[in-house]
Amino acid sequence: MQYSEMSKAELQEELERLKADYEKYKGFGLALNMARGKPSPAQLDLSAGMLDAFTSKDDPVTESGVDTRNYGNLEGIPEARALMGDWLGVPAENIYVCGNASLNIMYDCVADAMLFGVMGSTPWCRLDKVKFLCPVPGYDRHFKINELMGIEMVNVPMTENGPDMDIVEKLVSEDDSIKGIWCVPKYSNPQGIVYSDETVKRFAALKPAAKDFRIYWDNAYSIHYLYDESIEIPEILSECEKAGNPDLVYEFASTSKISHAGAGISCIAASTANLKSLHKRLTIQTIGYDKVNQLRHVMYFKNVDGLKAQMRKHAALLRPKFDKVLEILDRELAGKGAGSWLKPKGGYFISFEACEGCAKDIVARCKEAGVVLTGAGATYPYGKDPKDSNIRIAPSYPSPEELEKAAEIFCLCVKLSTIEKLLGK
Amino acid sequence: MQYSEMSKAELQEELERLKADYEKYKGFGLALNMARGKPSPAQLDLSAGMLDAFTSKDDPVTESGVDTRNYGNLEGIPEARALMGDWLGVPAENIYVCGNASLNIMYDCVADAMLFGVMGSTPWCRLDKVKFLCPVPGYDRHFKINELMGIEMVNVPMTENGPDMDIVEKLVSEDDSIKGIWCVPKYSNPQGIVYSDETVKRFAALKPAAKDFRIYWDNAYSIHYLYDESIEIPEILSECEKAGNPDLVYEFASTSKISHAGAGISCIAASTANLKSLHKRLTIQTIGYDKVNQLRHVMYFKNVDGLKAQMRKHAALLRPKFDKVLEILDRELAGKGAGSWLKPKGGYFISFEACEGCAKDIVARCKEAGVVLTGAGATYPYGKDPKDSNIRIAPSYPSPEELEKAAEIFCLCVKLSTIEKLLGK
Repeated sequence: MQYSEMSKAELQEELERLKADYEKYKGFGLALNMARGKPSPAQLDLSAGMLDAFTSKDDPVTESGVDTRNYGNLEGIPEARALMGDWLGVPAENIYVCGNASLNIMYDCVADAMLFGVMGSTPWCRLDKVKFLCPVPGYDRHFKINELMGIEMVNVPMTENGPDMDIVEKLVSEDDSIKGIWCVPKYSNPQGIVYSDETVKRFAALKPAAKDFRIYWDNAYSIHYLYDESIEIPEILSECEKAGNPDLVYEFASTSKISHAGAGISCIAASTANLKSLHKRLTIQTIGYDKVNQLRHVMYFKNVDGLKAQMRKHAALLRPKFDKVLEILDRELAGKGAGSWLKPKGGYFISFEACEGCAKDIVARCKEAGVVLTGAGATYPYGKDPKDSNIRIAPSYPSPEELEKAAEIFCLCVKLSTIEKLLGK
Repeated sequence: MQYSEMSKAELQEELERLKADYEKYKGFGLALNMARGKPSPAQLDLSAGMLDAFTSKDDPVTESGVDTRNYGNLEGIPEARALMGDWLGVPAENIYVCGNASLNIMYDCVADAMLFGVMGSTPWCRLDKVKFLCPVPGYDRHFKINELMGIEMVNVPMTENGPDMDIVEKLVSEDDSIKGIWCVPKYSNPQGIVYSDETVKRFAALKPAAKDFRIYWDNAYSIHYLYDESIEIPEILSECEKAGNPDLVYEFASTSKISHAGAGISCIAASTANLKSLHKRLTIQTIGYDKVNQLRHVMYFKNVDGLKAQMRKHAALLRPKFDKVLEILDRELAGKGAGSWLKPKGGYFISFEACEGCAKDIVARCKEAGVVLTGAGATYPYGKDPKDSNIRIAPSYPSPEELEKAAEIFCLCVKLSTIEKLLGK
């Protein structure tokens, strides 16, 4: 029965019952965490072999003739470029393999544009106003880069097919202060939405007013399936090229959630012209990224099938956790009108849409009962969720037992918050 | 006999003889390289055990409780901070351990200042003029960072005790557009000069007009001795603190020339206030540096004695190379007035001071005979050596046999260039 259809007395009675449960949980002194999309120790153990993949018995010189131990090769070793290229469906020459964090490449690309412009454009730090479009809900770390740089963020609503492209097309074609858009095209953070083919093609065909506009295509979860492994989206670089926009996109990816979260390898895929422009800064900034770790990854995974096989093992660990949370949400909240959620197709999160004005309250209640969630609002630029309704649930890190308890407490807090709201408390 | 004391006829005769030798060398089709300060394969082999130091049999969780495989710990694992701190004589809490290149940290610190200022100062990109002092000859990659950022460089001459401190003190106290100075305090690049105690103390006691002035203390060769292991300089952070300037310095170091050049770990040492300010950007820029590689280094080296023991092995490989080049310089050029050089106390280079106006010519002649040297002028800002006289020789990479040949060809080219200059050709 929908809470909204219950009488005041019924709601009051339900509230009392829930409060008693809540007090009980509070007494347990729990310390559960569903805040960050961190792999669990069991997932990290899946890549234990990575630590043995490249030993002193192996040749540190690649087949292509690079001594991985020495300086140089800014663009990464050819074998790692090929691995990442095969994965993303991009020619190896359009890939630079970098360090352990694709976030760092994204940050550097934006900082680059601020200081030096994009392929010869005016440095953004010299412009009065620079804006980015931010599909919402989205990834807080993208938003934080903009916030630090003083780049104004404009919300664009997500649909089940990706960002609302009518709005994106209109804004970028009209406003030359809009210089970028953050996209997580597959298993979006936090909703787990997969961009439709049409969305991808409309992105590739954008006609931005600003010639230094770039799509920041964070393909963080490209093969991070939970259920259906056959989900594919069109490859963005070639789509851009087909649409006559070869330089429109920077694509980012990493093995952070494939091998070890803090010790993976990352890459940027972009047109030759974009890479040439970025290279100018890179050659000043670094003596080259860690090629030993690049070769280690090549030796461990061998090829894209190796990456996919690893993701199947991750999915086997993650799926039951997602299933458990979804089952509890369904059991506790379905039909109550206390919020909605999407079943993600992959990725690391479940996005919960609470009743308007309840998200902060729910997160605070959870915290008091020992369950840490991502801060309410984090999925919106400036931490401001206009409806105070979105909550990102990250089921990956806790153990199954912890997760069950945490999800139950979460549902309890959702109910408490919703009923109090209805009762005008 | 000094060339300048020889008659024209004698010089002409000598020139003809040298030219014949030069043509002979040219015929050999050599491909020798004394350009970059790269460790040789034999040096890299010294750290082969690094690849076996951390295997799947080892605990990936540190004694301090950090799972090195996962996200987080921006500041580095406590064990690596302690290792780098012990090495530099700085408390671990004043160390952030970073990725594989200290150059990257230096670049990021300057980019940071450009975009966000230094501890709350006006971002440099908003100022009309920003200048750095550059002791010359110096390290080209420092200068390149400034050049890319549009930071004006002011040359400061080196003395046998370090930069000319009278000039440094005068300039930084008078001009608030001077925001930094690049220092390689021990075994300077390229001269191998060790800053005197007085120089270090005068640096620590600077009274810069700009409150966002920082000393960029690139301690790249701190334990990279060739001969005398007992050479020490005062520790700069504590000297700054003693002088009432706790925030005056950023110190940088790395294991690039201790373990593997492209796969080491680096660090920044700075005051708590400086680190707190840098942390604001770091927490946006990255999910943390590669902690697996940090733990690998801790397990391999264990402590500062392990680092020093490794440097003894490097010195054993490098010393004969330096000795060989110095011996040939001495044999071929001493007493001829064709240039001068310093015997470096450590580090990676021999700095050769040719007769005025000869450096570019010598480098070009060497190249034609198959010996690649660092481009003439590279040791000066903007690549402009005002006297066209400094040449940086990097003896580390070639094999001893290659090095002997390369040094002989170098001396030959020095003689040719000097005599032609004297003859007015």
